Amino acid sequence: MPGTFSVGLLGHGTVGAAFAALLEERAEAIGRVTGLRPRLSGVLTRSRGDFDAILADADLIVEVMGGVEPARNFALRAMRAGKHVVSANKLLLSQHGEELWACAREHGVQLRFEAAVAGVVPVIRVLQESLAAAHVERIHGIVNGTTNYILTEMARGGLSYALALEQAQALGYAEADPTDDVTGRDAAAKMAILARLAFDTPVHLDQVRYEGIEHITADDIAYAHQLGLGLKLIGTAERVDGGLSVRVHPAFLYGGHPLASVNGPFNAVTVESDAITEITMSGPGAGGPQTASAVLGDVISAMIPPATTPETSQELTIVNDVESAFYLHMEVADRPGVLAQVAELLGMQGGSIKSVVQRGLGDNESLVMVLHPLLESRFYAGVQLIAQLDFMRSAPRAIRVIEEEFV
Amino acid sequence: MPGTFSVGLLGHGTVGAAFAALLEERAEAIGRVTGLRPRLSGVLTRSRGDFDAILADADLIVEVMGGVEPARNFALRAMRAGKHVVSANKLLLSQHGEELWACAREHGVQLRFEAAVAGVVPVIRVLQESLAAAHVERIHGIVNGTTNYILTEMARGGLSYALALEQAQALGYAEADPTDDVTGRDAAAKMAILARLAFDTPVHLDQVRYEGIEHITADDIAYAHQLGLGLKLIGTAERVDGGLSVRVHPAFLYGGHPLASVNGPFNAVTVESDAITEITMSGPGAGGPQTASAVLGDVISAMIPPATTPETSQELTIVNDVESAFYLHMEVADRPGVLAQVAELLGMQGGSIKSVVQRGLGDNESLVMVLHPLLESRFYAGVQLIAQLDFMRSAPRAIRVIEEEFV
Repeated sequence: MPGTFSVGLLGHGTVGAAFAALLEERAEAIGRVTGLRPRLSGVLTRSRGDFDAILADADLIVEVMGGVEPARNFALRAMRAGKHVVSANKLLLSQHGEELWACAREHGVQLRFEAAVAGVVPVIRVLQESLAAAHVERIHGIVNGTTNYILTEMARGGLSYALALEQAQALGYAEADPTDDVTGRDAAAKMAILARLAFDTPVHLDQVRYEGIEHITADDIAYAHQLGLGLKLIGTAERVDGGLSVRVHPAFLYGGHPLASVNGPFNAVTVESDAITEITMSGPGAGGPQTASAVLGDVISAMIPPATTPETSQELTIVNDVESAFYLHMEVADRPGVLAQVAELLGMQGGSIKSVVQRGLGDNESLVMVLHPLLESRFYAGVQLIAQLDFMRSAPRAIRVIEEEFV
Repeated sequence: MPGTFSVGLLGHGTVGAAFAALLEERAEAIGRVTGLRPRLSGVLTRSRGDFDAILADADLIVEVMGGVEPARNFALRAMRAGKHVVSANKLLLSQHGEELWACAREHGVQLRFEAAVAGVVPVIRVLQESLAAAHVERIHGIVNGTTNYILTEMARGGLSYALALEQAQALGYAEADPTDDVTGRDAAAKMAILARLAFDTPVHLDQVRYEGIEHITADDIAYAHQLGLGLKLIGTAERVDGGLSVRVHPAFLYGGHPLASVNGPFNAVTVESDAITEITMSGPGAGGPQTASAVLGDVISAMIPPATTPETSQELTIVNDVESAFYLHMEVADRPGVLAQVAELLGMQGGSIKSVVQRGLGDNESLVMVLHPLLESRFYAGVQLIAQLDFMRSAPRAIRVIEEEFV
């Protein structure tokens, strides 16, 4: 019977509610990993709850209320009372980070804030831990999902900015007042936090230059596409002449850039340094469950000693026959009915054809197809039968296909 | 004057030598972050050094000798003596992980092994910390740089497998005996470790099915390209019917898949779970300095209390005028000498044109160009002059371009 670990929650909007649900759902697994069962000991909303009572009961405070005050005041009071704090508040940290981090050091508590930048993408942890003493040269980031969604839609559908924004609002990717997102200010706050951690120097939101995407035309995106370029709202923090430049602006990228293929509401960050070359991390940048998941990762980290590999809790059966889609390449004689016979043998095993390429003539004909997923054992049974057909000129070649398509 | 932290190093090959150099280079920064200055207190090579003497002197043991024995024996003895261990040894962990992790738990020491899987890509840390209690559904990984390099070259140049392998060997991306890499066994060991951590169940290397890339033809890659597919050696670990499938095999991916654009010797891992949707991490999968950097990240983590944000150590000047490449869009009247005048005004500011698109006729003509990097203040000065030219039909539009091209 594990002991309990009490979590006080400040804020019960989209993220707060998702966090409360996730904490309950994962409580048993967390108990297994940490030896302590977490429970929500108090919740502060706009209309109910008392901060002092919540603080007194809590081992750790989760702050997802947003805004500077009273979040700042609550976080400071929690840390002074010896409680760890997990915050998702980029505005707070980009303006009062030094005060808060100093308070955490002074009182020997943890202040974690993975969810403040790039949602579930673990860039804060990687900068603070994996790269704690690295000499970072540059960070590039797509750290605002709203603008990345809008730019993706403008590029894909030739939509105007206004129309793409409207669509983003209808789908919940943009707020009714999108100012903070589309002007680049939200991204600037996140870049201030990343730059502070990566370059070990104070960076305040006010020191970050930013431009938004309000003036981008679908026309520019279409022109640049001809030059092999795609448009993103990019945050940059880099060493320049012994100093540091931190800025956010729309920028074109060539197709090979690791951030070029980050589409829709996703976020991604690339960290460059001589020793590591570069690391790129990407994932959903926002969304209640995703942000809540980042908060929960921080809560668990505050609960456990570092880098323990817990005992296994189960012994899952190792499954050896799974469903896969397949690419199948056959060199065949040019004869009527070839495709039909192959399709029939595959069909008997539950296979169906997704797409076909037929190429060549006469003795050089190749029949190439992609099949929908079927059990691998049945697929290979079908291929064995196909291999014996008299029009086959060599052994068929099969390679698996991963089918998922992404945003 | 900080105290010291003694690191004993087992193995002095490519990774060991790079680690020793990096530890010295970053010693001061590490002292600042951790309060302790690390020093190499002993090195064991094939021909010199005594394990017992090294162990007695060390606060932590770094094991980069590879192979199962004597690495296993040394790691166990170090942990029994109360020392943390950092290992880059995938073969050891995929076969004797449970024994080693149990030993770490029993003796209250840390056993860290980020460098054993995907080099500098922080997938171990993210699985153990950010996703400690997540319900992971699936992991896909490109976890072998040698085979990814070979497949990339086969796709890019139409090279045969044999020729691409030869090229990889000449460039140091493949060993003289490439068996472990090209058969998929190396990737299988890494997938066993990832599956163990993600699914919280014992997974031994012998339980991972694997196929290599030796039989792939350039022809198949070319055919599949027509179907929008690219080939990778993919490791998969996923829940199937209440059990677990762990396997490595060549697989085709559609262009939009997050792993499709991972080229050359890079590694990447995608983790999927309901709560997080998916996280993708990528970076160099091997190489002495990169692997050493992952080892160093683990060493530092073993030295510091978790999640401290240290005081800033410096105050870098915030630079506001930087060099950027630009896209420039001008609506111009169709008149001789337009391009020349624009180029001259830009040239006076140090700008030079990389590429140009001219489109339309007469009154609808657009002149679109991409410029090589120049100081932003000078670029905008040039644009101001261009805006006043009498053939300009509207204000020029400028958007920055990020120039780096990647593998």
